[in-house]
Amino acid sequence: MRFRFKPVDGSVNAPKGFQSAGVFCDIKRLGTGKGSNKGQKRDLALIVSEAPCAVAGLFTTNQVCAAPVKVCLERIKKGRARAIVVNSGNANACTGRQGMKDAREMAAFTEAALKLPVGSVFVGSTGRIGVKMPMDNVRAGIVEAATLLNNESESAAHAAEAIMTSDTRPKQIAVEFKIGGKSVRIGGMCKGAGMIHPGMSPTGKRPATLPLHATMLSFITTDAAIDSKTLQRCLNEAVALSFNRITVDGDMSTNDTVLVLANGLAGNKPLTGGAKLPLSPDLTNFQAALNHVCLQLAQMIVKDGEGVTRFVTVRVDGAKTLKDADAAARAVANSALVKTSWLGGDPNWGRIIDALGYSAATIVEEKVDIGYSAPGSRKVVWSLKRGQPTRATFKELCAAAAPKEFDLHIRLNLGKGSAIMYASDLTEEYVEFNKGDVADPASLGG
Amino acid sequence: MRFRFKPVDGSVNAPKGFQSAGVFCDIKRLGTGKGSNKGQKRDLALIVSEAPCAVAGLFTTNQVCAAPVKVCLERIKKGRARAIVVNSGNANACTGRQGMKDAREMAAFTEAALKLPVGSVFVGSTGRIGVKMPMDNVRAGIVEAATLLNNESESAAHAAEAIMTSDTRPKQIAVEFKIGGKSVRIGGMCKGAGMIHPGMSPTGKRPATLPLHATMLSFITTDAAIDSKTLQRCLNEAVALSFNRITVDGDMSTNDTVLVLANGLAGNKPLTGGAKLPLSPDLTNFQAALNHVCLQLAQMIVKDGEGVTRFVTVRVDGAKTLKDADAAARAVANSALVKTSWLGGDPNWGRIIDALGYSAATIVEEKVDIGYSAPGSRKVVWSLKRGQPTRATFKELCAAAAPKEFDLHIRLNLGKGSAIMYASDLTEEYVEFNKGDVADPASLGG
Repeated sequence: MRFRFKPVDGSVNAPKGFQSAGVFCDIKRLGTGKGSNKGQKRDLALIVSEAPCAVAGLFTTNQVCAAPVKVCLERIKKGRARAIVVNSGNANACTGRQGMKDAREMAAFTEAALKLPVGSVFVGSTGRIGVKMPMDNVRAGIVEAATLLNNESESAAHAAEAIMTSDTRPKQIAVEFKIGGKSVRIGGMCKGAGMIHPGMSPTGKRPATLPLHATMLSFITTDAAIDSKTLQRCLNEAVALSFNRITVDGDMSTNDTVLVLANGLAGNKPLTGGAKLPLSPDLTNFQAALNHVCLQLAQMIVKDGEGVTRFVTVRVDGAKTLKDADAAARAVANSALVKTSWLGGDPNWGRIIDALGYSAATIVEEKVDIGYSAPGSRKVVWSLKRGQPTRATFKELCAAAAPKEFDLHIRLNLGKGSAIMYASDLTEEYVEFNKGDVADPASLGG
Repeated sequence: MRFRFKPVDGSVNAPKGFQSAGVFCDIKRLGTGKGSNKGQKRDLALIVSEAPCAVAGLFTTNQVCAAPVKVCLERIKKGRARAIVVNSGNANACTGRQGMKDAREMAAFTEAALKLPVGSVFVGSTGRIGVKMPMDNVRAGIVEAATLLNNESESAAHAAEAIMTSDTRPKQIAVEFKIGGKSVRIGGMCKGAGMIHPGMSPTGKRPATLPLHATMLSFITTDAAIDSKTLQRCLNEAVALSFNRITVDGDMSTNDTVLVLANGLAGNKPLTGGAKLPLSPDLTNFQAALNHVCLQLAQMIVKDGEGVTRFVTVRVDGAKTLKDADAAARAVANSALVKTSWLGGDPNWGRIIDALGYSAATIVEEKVDIGYSAPGSRKVVWSLKRGQPTRATFKELCAAAAPKEFDLHIRLNLGKGSAIMYASDLTEEYVEFNKGDVADPASLGG
């Protein structure tokens, strides 16, 4: 029987022993006053475990890397954590020494407010680059959030709201499954919208093999008992199949961060094994659940990207190598002309094969197949087979490329390399939103 | 005294012995009838030399390469030419064997119509990909154009109109200068608008050193006496500094082509020397004039790109290597977030340093300078110095980033690598234009 997990409520508060809160502390300095009851979107979140946690994380490989990311990279080496403090409205990126001081103080102030051990709080930030953190507001926010912490779904929803920037809705998920008879839960939240083309690694350094590529932030909690090394291995795989396979605009952020905290309160027999294969059946199940959580969250980011109206899964198969498959999928997923054709519902295979042709992947025009299906369906309407237009009519192809969500199938027929990218269209709304209004600096994005 | 050349009228007809014509032959099959007098934009051009020419060319390095490009690559090996036949409205790309047959027939039919030697006519096409060439229309167009050939400026303007696709205006230039007391002229025309990020090479193969990156077409004529090897060497340099340094949308086309025909009728002492350095003073002057013609034409393409409202010269200096400088300049020039900020006149250095950080170039955040100047001016308003915001006010920076044309100065302060990219903003009009309307397939682009 296939491994099953069921959806549950509660987001990051779903696993045992986790509490969260989200408050408004006017980090953008809108001047509308502090407190969470002023009708303003919340902008500071706390996620706290009552028990010590194993922690794993992946971070942007952008060489310009925000202060909170650097603080996380320092702290993750110990593999232990108790809480995460996150703000929106300011990325604390390109803020020099003051930025590092501020990020460390966010963590230290949270530790003091919650009476947690030194070094046990992780930090995340998202918003405009190059603006000094309003630390008075941040401290007031932490103090207020600390008084509001609880394990209710509503509080988790407040936290998920607090990390939003240009997102139109909070993004949350939680699942429950069994490990050795014990109920285990994984909960998560994330934010995205723009500057979305993550390429995260555990060290923030670019692996030679990882092709390059928002601010996306994702915070995941679990009550599974698992050591930090094994947790990191599982997170690496889950992110490689999810967050590192999404793009909205091809711009990789200075702040991308995924963190998982595992407090062990489910009482399962501890999951161990690190990088050793094969995985135990229990670890295989945990991995499957974590993959599901990360993939669902990653797809929510693309679907709620700035101005996005289409969600397209680009499936490349038959590439000479895995690297080729990845390069081909990214070239198509990031092509301005392909993305505008999706907006128009135009089944324009010419722009697709053009992007394949200039990608770093080896392509033989006479071997390329291009087609469309409903999401996850094997019933493909092919527009191109072996480089030649099929007999499918323009009307049939338009119908296949019209839905709000579809799969784009590309077969290079040169080898066994496969890759998937989750991509969006490029819309007038994206441009309108990002051009901002210099007469109203508050409208300007990250 | 600095070498001088003066602007002259006549475009590709300016040099001695060249004639051209542009006609409407309904290549898009609008069904509005043939002939050049129906109020439709012309769509087929001829450029013909009365004397045999040395020829040089560069071609798209897209692996998906249109039939006319393949025909040019076959013919250029001989280094000799008499004429060029070009159509807009159909790219003759991804058209299989029939496409190759049609491209060869365009050339052969032109040779027969003009009584030129077999193999002496070059072919160019631009327009929608994957549509069979309407050869009856093409033949009728060639026949009509052949009757209209002459050396007047108006005919050259008709030819420049005939190669336009989404261009809003024809692009032409001609200059005159002296070589050994003889007057020599170079004339040229080009088209661009969308799918503009050329990376052309003489063989259509990617040099390992050339970073990857419309349909852009450019046809240049000269009455200089120069051998084809020397002409190719000069064109390689001119294109490396012009057409291969422009981007509108980051999509490299299947059809990019630059061709130069040199008929020697100026009577100068033949320019020779191939790739040998140092260049003779005469060759240095010819190179300078060719560089000027190519750069002016290339800049016209960016300024008239689809929906473009801003022309930005991205100047990267102080990169570790030339390759790094190029990677940094292209990352900034192709970033959706940077380009939308230009549209808004937003002096957003955060997005610029973000793009630098994810580029393949080595960057040290604490060393980066970013500033703005008027085109070609050394009076730079710096927004960032050594990774830290300067004292320039938001108002001052907005004023510096507001003009329709400005230079963006980026200093990495790590070495001596420099690169320039000529780039545009990304606008709602670009998206609107390229999404097309599937209910009106004629609106759909290349």
